[in-house]
Amino acid sequence: MKDLITAAEMLTKEDVTSLILLAKKRKKLTWDAIAQGIGLSPVFTHSACMGMNAMPADKAAALVAFLDLPAEAQDVLEEYPTKIWEQAVPTDPCIYRLYEIVGVYGPTMKALIQEEFGNGIMSAIDFDMVISRVPSPKGDRVKVEMSGKFLAYANW
Amino acid sequence: MKDLITAAEMLTKEDVTSLILLAKKRKKLTWDAIAQGIGLSPVFTHSACMGMNAMPADKAAALVAFLDLPAEAQDVLEEYPTKIWEQAVPTDPCIYRLYEIVGVYGPTMKALIQEEFGNGIMSAIDFDMVISRVPSPKGDRVKVEMSGKFLAYANW
Amino acid sequence: MKDLITAAEMLTKEDVTSLILLAKKRKKLTWDAIAQGIGLSPVFTHSACMGMNAMPADKAAALVAFLDLPAEAQDVLEEYPTKIWEQAVPTDPCIYRLYEIVGVYGPTMKALIQEEFGNGIMSAIDFDMVISRVPSPKGDRVKVEMSGKFLAYANW
Amino acid sequence: MKDLITAAEMLTKEDVTSLILLAKKRKKLTWDAIAQGIGLSPVFTHSACMGMNAMPADKAAALVAFLDLPAEAQDVLEEYPTKIWEQAVPTDPCIYRLYEIVGVYGPTMKALIQEEFGNGIMSAIDFDMVISRVPSPKGDRVKVEMSGKFLAYANW
Amino acid sequence: MKDLITAAEMLTKEDVTSLILLAKKRKKLTWDAIAQGIGLSPVFTHSACMGMNAMPADKAAALVAFLDLPAEAQDVLEEYPTKIWEQAVPTDPCIYRLYEIVGVYGPTMKALIQEEFGNGIMSAIDFDMVISRVPSPKGDRVKVEMSGKFLAYANW
Amino acid sequence: MKDLITAAEMLTKEDVTSLILLAKKRKKLTWDAIAQGIGLSPVFTHSACMGMNAMPADKAAALVAFLDLPAEAQDVLEEYPTKIWEQAVPTDPCIYRLYEIVGVYGPTMKALIQEEFGNGIMSAIDFDMVISRVPSPKGDRVKVEMSGKFLAYANW
Amino acid sequence: MKDLITAAEMLTKEDVTSLILLAKKRKKLTWDAIAQGIGLSPVFTHSACMGMNAMPADKAAALVAFLDLPAEAQDVLEEYPTKIWEQAVPTDPCIYRLYEIVGVYGPTMKALIQEEFGNGIMSAIDFDMVISRVPSPKGDRVKVEMSGKFLAYANW
Amino acid sequence: MKDLITAAEMLTKEDVTSLILLAKKRKKLTWDAIAQGIGLSPVFTHSACMGMNAMPADKAAALVAFLDLPAEAQDVLEEYPTKIWEQAVPTDPCIYRLYEIVGVYGPTMKALIQEEFGNGIMSAIDFDMVISRVPSPKGDRVKVEMSGKFLAYANW
Amino acid sequence: MKDLITAAEMLTKEDVTSLILLAKKRKKLTWDAIAQGIGLSPVFTHSACMGMNAMPADKAAALVAFLDLPAEAQDVLEEYPTKIWEQAVPTDPCIYRLYEIVGVYGPTMKALIQEEFGNGIMSAIDFDMVISRVPSPKGDRVKVEMSGKFLAYANW
Amino acid sequence: MKDLITAAEMLTKEDVTSLILLAKKRKKLTWDAIAQGIGLSPVFTHSACMGMNAMPADKAAALVAFLDLPAEAQDVLEEYPTKIWEQAVPTDPCIYRLYEIVGVYGPTMKALIQEEFGNGIMSAIDFDMVISRVPSPKGDRVKVEMSGKFLAYANW
Repeated sequence: MKDLITAAEMLTKEDVTSLILLAKKRKKLTWDAIAQGIGLSPVFTHSACMGMNAMPADKAAALVAFLDLPAEAQDVLEEYPTKIWEQAVPTDPCIYRLYEIVGVYGPTMKALIQEEFGNGIMSAIDFDMVISRVPSPKGDRVKVEMSGKFLAYANW
Repeated sequence: MKDLITAAEMLTKEDVTSLILLAKKRKKLTWDAIAQGIGLSPVFTHSACMGMNAMPADKAAALVAFLDLPAEAQDVLEEYPTKIWEQAVPTDPCIYRLYEIVGVYGPTMKALIQEEFGNGIMSAIDFDMVISRVPSPKGDRVKVEMSGKFLAYANW
Repeated sequence: MKDLITAAEMLTKEDVTSLILLAKKRKKLTWDAIAQGIGLSPVFTHSACMGMNAMPADKAAALVAFLDLPAEAQDVLEEYPTKIWEQAVPTDPCIYRLYEIVGVYGPTMKALIQEEFGNGIMSAIDFDMVISRVPSPKGDRVKVEMSGKFLAYANW
Repeated sequence: MKDLITAAEMLTKEDVTSLILLAKKRKKLTWDAIAQGIGLSPVFTHSACMGMNAMPADKAAALVAFLDLPAEAQDVLEEYPTKIWEQAVPTDPCIYRLYEIVGVYGPTMKALIQEEFGNGIMSAIDFDMVISRVPSPKGDRVKVEMSGKFLAYANW
Repeated sequence: MKDLITAAEMLTKEDVTSLILLAKKRKKLTWDAIAQGIGLSPVFTHSACMGMNAMPADKAAALVAFLDLPAEAQDVLEEYPTKIWEQAVPTDPCIYRLYEIVGVYGPTMKALIQEEFGNGIMSAIDFDMVISRVPSPKGDRVKVEMSGKFLAYANW
Repeated sequence: MKDLITAAEMLTKEDVTSLILLAKKRKKLTWDAIAQGIGLSPVFTHSACMGMNAMPADKAAALVAFLDLPAEAQDVLEEYPTKIWEQAVPTDPCIYRLYEIVGVYGPTMKALIQEEFGNGIMSAIDFDMVISRVPSPKGDRVKVEMSGKFLAYANW
Repeated sequence: MKDLITAAEMLTKEDVTSLILLAKKRKKLTWDAIAQGIGLSPVFTHSACMGMNAMPADKAAALVAFLDLPAEAQDVLEEYPTKIWEQAVPTDPCIYRLYEIVGVYGPTMKALIQEEFGNGIMSAIDFDMVISRVPSPKGDRVKVEMSGKFLAYANW
Repeated sequence: MKDLITAAEMLTKEDVTSLILLAKKRKKLTWDAIAQGIGLSPVFTHSACMGMNAMPADKAAALVAFLDLPAEAQDVLEEYPTKIWEQAVPTDPCIYRLYEIVGVYGPTMKALIQEEFGNGIMSAIDFDMVISRVPSPKGDRVKVEMSGKFLAYANW
Repeated sequence: MKDLITAAEMLTKEDVTSLILLAKKRKKLTWDAIAQGIGLSPVFTHSACMGMNAMPADKAAALVAFLDLPAEAQDVLEEYPTKIWEQAVPTDPCIYRLYEIVGVYGPTMKALIQEEFGNGIMSAIDFDMVISRVPSPKGDRVKVEMSGKFLAYANW
Repeated sequence: MKDLITAAEMLTKEDVTSLILLAKKRKKLTWDAIAQGIGLSPVFTHSACMGMNAMPADKAAALVAFLDLPAEAQDVLEEYPTKIWEQAVPTDPCIYRLYEIVGVYGPTMKALIQEEFGNGIMSAIDFDMVISRVPSPKGDRVKVEMSGKFLAYANW
């Protein structure tokens, strides 16, 4: 079947992720630098480069130019991804701690959001996130700021 | 066996949670008001009232006084909890969205934390969180701010 | 502990569901009739009576009056529920068929929604549903109409 | 073993799906346009192209012509598929919301179907679905209309 | 809450199952005899007595009379059940063997049904079953005869 | 390593299944015709061709001749298979309905088998099955007849 | 409901197990002694006392007499059990080691059984087991001897 | 990377298993014959050939000679394996029956071992097994004899 | 049934654990003090008090005396427990970290144990553990020392 | 895609692990010797070679030199790994025993750590481990010494 399809047409999101990681390594760039280079936040840039979000057309074009990716990568970066994660409970310690926070504080977050806003949820779609460093004499701290639109449950 | 133990000695964390919820309802208090009443943050206050964290002795005493709980509740609030959650994948939509954020953005958070700090994790133990409302013309937003101490992996 | 709490204060959502089912049986009412009696749709009415949604205050009051429930039930009907289902794969055939539809047609629904609206989802929060009968010579058909607000993924 | 089988004989449903996606991209077609081109609904067309349903012979032939697929693809499109999905709980947010609707409203749908029709189910086999856009000043809505034959439980 | 509901109103399907098992034991009846006594098949009779199927009103009345059950049991027997089984893989050897048959022969049954009838399924709703003994010199055999309506997949 | 083993020696059960399916397609045969051609039942023939049962030597030879398979396939058809299925709960609707029948009627089948035969099981090893069509004015029905030797539990 | 059933009629297998364990403790008996007292093997005796096997009528009567159980216990001991275990992977170390043996040596046992007997299985129904001590200078050994009837796969 | 490693250096336990199975087939040997040829038991020989146990150096050398395996296979046979099984509940009927025996009789085996030896377990490490045929007029039986060193729990 | 058994005879391991926890609280004792009081290590003492290990008779008697437990508790403390844990992946952060260590370092521990000792395992039965505090200027450290007998795999 | 990336750029952690294992075999080195050769502990060295930890730059360079690895391996050894393990319950006996220790003693370790240090955990990040042999007349013992920084829960 492979003779019916050209290599460029066969580029998957995984392939583009590999090409990006390689270009990043060759050019000795950080995610922060790439994000600045194309005018998006580091969180969204990394997530889209990993294939977990779709880039708007202009940003996809900017990334292709910034990293010297093959032209066909632009289309792939714009494709709407199917988001799949394979470990219901993640094992990597850095990610597990986040999962643990949801396990321990999830009911608390629900209670306080709903006390403030009424019955509803924080959207994970109309959503953004920033990660930064907070210096501290006892050891620097990771700061994670999330913001999502409040969505109220309909009644009908 | 029950004749060997008095009712007050048998108070569990679940019992104290029920007593707190009832007092909160009778007194028409919010979590925010309770938290202010005892001088802790709303997130930590709610979590400790749910039995997922232990209160320091002075705060436990303050809560017992503030809510007119039975005196025996203080000891229970100070006990170190065993943190258990039963749904590896939470079903409540408000909590699921948080789980989904970890699934979608977990690898991104790991990459950016480690780019900034080196190989390590954000602690979920030396950790705090604030939840607030951000007004927005398109619909107000929930803001979640987490901060945890960065812990570097040892090598030895 | 039970002597510290009155029976009415202890009413849970499960209790109220039982009281509603009993009143419905005693009064020989259908869900349709109850829904009309309080001015909500049958789907939302049933769901809130099962404890999977919260009723607005006026509707909760109307239901208590319509079904002669104890006055304390109103508060419980207004409480924001924690939505839990215990079977990741439901076994009841009527519910399993719905799960199967999501399994078979989920990727198709995603593709067509995103072709029409762009990258995003149909909200399950700002959402409504109507179920009706469609007569057919080969056997009447169940019609399910769902509508949910389209939510576009943010980029930032 | 591969020398015993010609490439065309080895075409799988996955291969035909890839060929369709490529042709769709090259010809810049939407699913809606493909569906109109062969006289089937968009939902069924997409589902059969994904290998989750079998096309009738005339429609399979029409699709092969419409998209300039290799002739051997027709047979594959007509094959009765084995429907497999690998995630009991889907992770993609667009599909998860549908799963969540079944979790939250499944028991309600069962109750209302059975109140109207008697003991039985909505068929997921003698079944159809339409997805459309409903304009709304607060943001357009996705409309999903499903219809399935009611099947009554036998007693014997 | 219990003072609001009479004992008879609280009868569940589990309670009625217990009452039937007890009456069967006291009267030294077989399932076959009970089935004959009310004019239904043994399979359907047992299944409805276990709470996995609903009895038609006349049969429910007949069973109440035949076994001297309390009158309130009739309503419960007529209720449409929610069918739940808790072990995805059954452990009892007699039931596991049936599960194993589906595991080993399921794909074969699908292939032969679809070869004979076209693309579709055997209904588990419009369905009946008979179990009987077949004498054999090498040891008697259990015979299971199932019949279900063929349902063809729609295309639309 | 592959240079140490000839292609024919490397034929697996999966390979032979592929060769059979291809020969069946090229010769436009049904499973029924193949079964008649070698003097076995359709259920057993299909199952052995899928690699879930082992063929007796004469039948394996007959199949190789009937379908013009490579001679080395005979050995593979005679090999005792390891029976593996990967989905504890099958997703294909045609197979799921069979699983559902075991879930709903498994305890009933156990009760009636043990009422008739005493404590024991229906063997899934000394077992056979026939599938046929039963014409019916309301729509033809699938008939499944299974028979298995009764095995009594030992006591010792 | 409880007023409709006498205490003796309500005895479950779990109750009888408790009564047996208590009698064994009061009389300071071993399982070996109980088994000898009623003329069955220790393995079968223990298993039936735990409710995992049914006793023949004479042995049930003997056990009731030997342990001074209430007369109603005899019926319960004769009932055919539904065998349920709740941990797919057992955690108790003594039982886990047996599970591990099946994991490590299961394919080997299958290969050697089928090399000796042909395609088939060792029955777990027509089955017996003896456990004994084998003195050894390096530490005594547990000996487990199992024997089960070989059952050959049918072909038809 | 493959150019850095020679084929012989890349031999895995899976490769050696394939080579052994092929040699066994070409030489028309049984596991019993192979075991005799190298002076080990059939159970251990098969298990080590499947990669689930490590052979002592002299036995590995004997096997390489006996089966004319490539010399590099000896090292691989001596490697300490990581024992992995992928199905927590095995599906093959011959292996499942063994799993079922652990499920049904596991607690009994624990009780009788601990009655005889005190608190402890039968080792699955210092362990051996023999499988043999026991002729019987009602059908020959499989005999499985296991022996493992008793290990007493420490207290400290 | 309860009238057939005295309360003292019904004491379970869970009951004794509750009595111990209560006595510990009333007497304001630490586990360390209890362990010293009866001459066992703190790890073993706590584990046996939780019902996960059996105490030798003299230590059980000493504990009953030391904590003024009812005399019947001694027998219960001597009973051989069935060790059950319900969360395959523990959620409590303090216990999860231990699980994580096994996940991350398990293969390393296996490799180094087997490099030093040959093919075999560290026993979890003939096993002991000590937990202590190690002062450190950067924050005190928890020290866990485990020792288990090496067990070599048999070959036979 | 592969023509866009050089082989050396494509080296993964798995590849480097293979190269290390091969070099270790060719040079007949132990993990202990490798660890000494680069001045790290055996536990950390093995873990980093398996890809479960990242090496500091100087140690990665030392390992490349010590084992004559390709220069590109250094970068890979320094990469921060994503730690994944696929078996929630490990099956290999040597690793399972460690899992079992966490299951049996986890709650005890938590209790004693928190009795000594207050509410908190032992870090698995700021953590080290040594494995050694302890001679013993009854059979040598494996000693595992772990030490992790104590982390106290924040309250805020």
